[in-house]
Amino acid sequence: MVNQMYQECIDACLECMEACNSCYDACLREEDVKMMADCIRMDRECADICAFAIKAMQSNSPFAKQIIALCAEICQACGEECQKHSHHDHCRKCAEACFRCAEVCRKMVA
Amino acid sequence: MVNQMYQECIDACLECMEACNSCYDACLREEDVKMMADCIRMDRECADICAFAIKAMQSNSPFAKQIIALCAEICQACGEECQKHSHHDHCRKCAEACFRCAEVCRKMVA
Amino acid sequence: MVNQMYQECIDACLECMEACNSCYDACLREEDVKMMADCIRMDRECADICAFAIKAMQSNSPFAKQIIALCAEICQACGEECQKHSHHDHCRKCAEACFRCAEVCRKMVA
Amino acid sequence: MVNQMYQECIDACLECMEACNSCYDACLREEDVKMMADCIRMDRECADICAFAIKAMQSNSPFAKQIIALCAEICQACGEECQKHSHHDHCRKCAEACFRCAEVCRKMVA
Repeated sequence: MVNQMYQECIDACLECMEACNSCYDACLREEDVKMMADCIRMDRECADICAFAIKAMQSNSPFAKQIIALCAEICQACGEECQKHSHHDHCRKCAEACFRCAEVCRKMVA
Repeated sequence: MVNQMYQECIDACLECMEACNSCYDACLREEDVKMMADCIRMDRECADICAFAIKAMQSNSPFAKQIIALCAEICQACGEECQKHSHHDHCRKCAEACFRCAEVCRKMVA
Repeated sequence: MVNQMYQECIDACLECMEACNSCYDACLREEDVKMMADCIRMDRECADICAFAIKAMQSNSPFAKQIIALCAEICQACGEECQKHSHHDHCRKCAEACFRCAEVCRKMVA
Repeated sequence: MVNQMYQECIDACLECMEACNSCYDACLREEDVKMMADCIRMDRECADICAFAIKAMQSNSPFAKQIIALCAEICQACGEECQKHSHHDHCRKCAEACFRCAEVCRKMVA
């Protein structure tokens, strides 16, 4: 059974992962890809650490706390990059999911 | 935006991934770990391919179909292994999630 | 001990993964990122399936053959995309590593 | 091109990842699997963070340092678990690769 104490954090990571994977795909289809280069990179960093954190929590990893702390940092940075492009719907939504996830992760390890 | 045609399949993979990660953790805590060795292995195979398939669908991978087909095969095999240990709650639930995911994945690529 | 029969295939996947990860980074730094959008996407697909195949072989996964077969297909497609940009050193080297890996993977599962 | 400053660290992570994947497989085949339960778990944690760190270094992730620091911690812990079972060849070799990787990672981020 998944440890219930993690549930809010798993849910935030799942939403953030989806937002980042979708934003990555959408950025690669934008007219001005060059402007989105950092966003593409951050989306992948963030989707991948979220997936890593979800696995850690769902399997009760002994390193879950450290992984969640790293996830918070990467989500925060990804949110800040996405926010620069908030005229794109996918970036605005992604920034929101990233900041929310960063906050929940920070609370989790506080 | 996540491709809506994938949504049912993503949801099935998310449930299966959680069930497998939880079952992996629970199997490692069982009294008779030796009897669970194949289940531990299959849980990891299945959780990992589900995560891979989720990423492929959420990011509109050009290889999503092939990855989903492989996911169906691994879910089916994991379900069959877990079913042997259905006296354990975690294995019974995992088998159900695996068979359901295998079915949805097969339908997706049919 | 790693299964010796896999060694050549593991080595080819390791080289291909490195070439794709490097090419992904280099493409994101190019002047004309838009022209490299498909290459960026394929580099990630290919680096990630190579990593997945390496794990499968090194841990004697019961699904190694199927994963290697999928790896062959993705490496071939990534090589074909990279080849279009062979005026970039990183793309030319990546295409070579991809085609070599595709060939070794196909031989492995033949 | 892979950042040359990372090369020693990438190599140590590659060796550690292989040792952990092999040890994971071997532990699941041991007579006394129960005694190896923590080792199985740590092998997966360690192989997976090494793979994550390799990807980060090869693609010049802006979070490489933080990921390498986490890798050092997990390698150290995995080495300490494997060392308890050093009568098994695979555990002894794995412990050596883990301690070596932990050291190189710590040096990298110092």
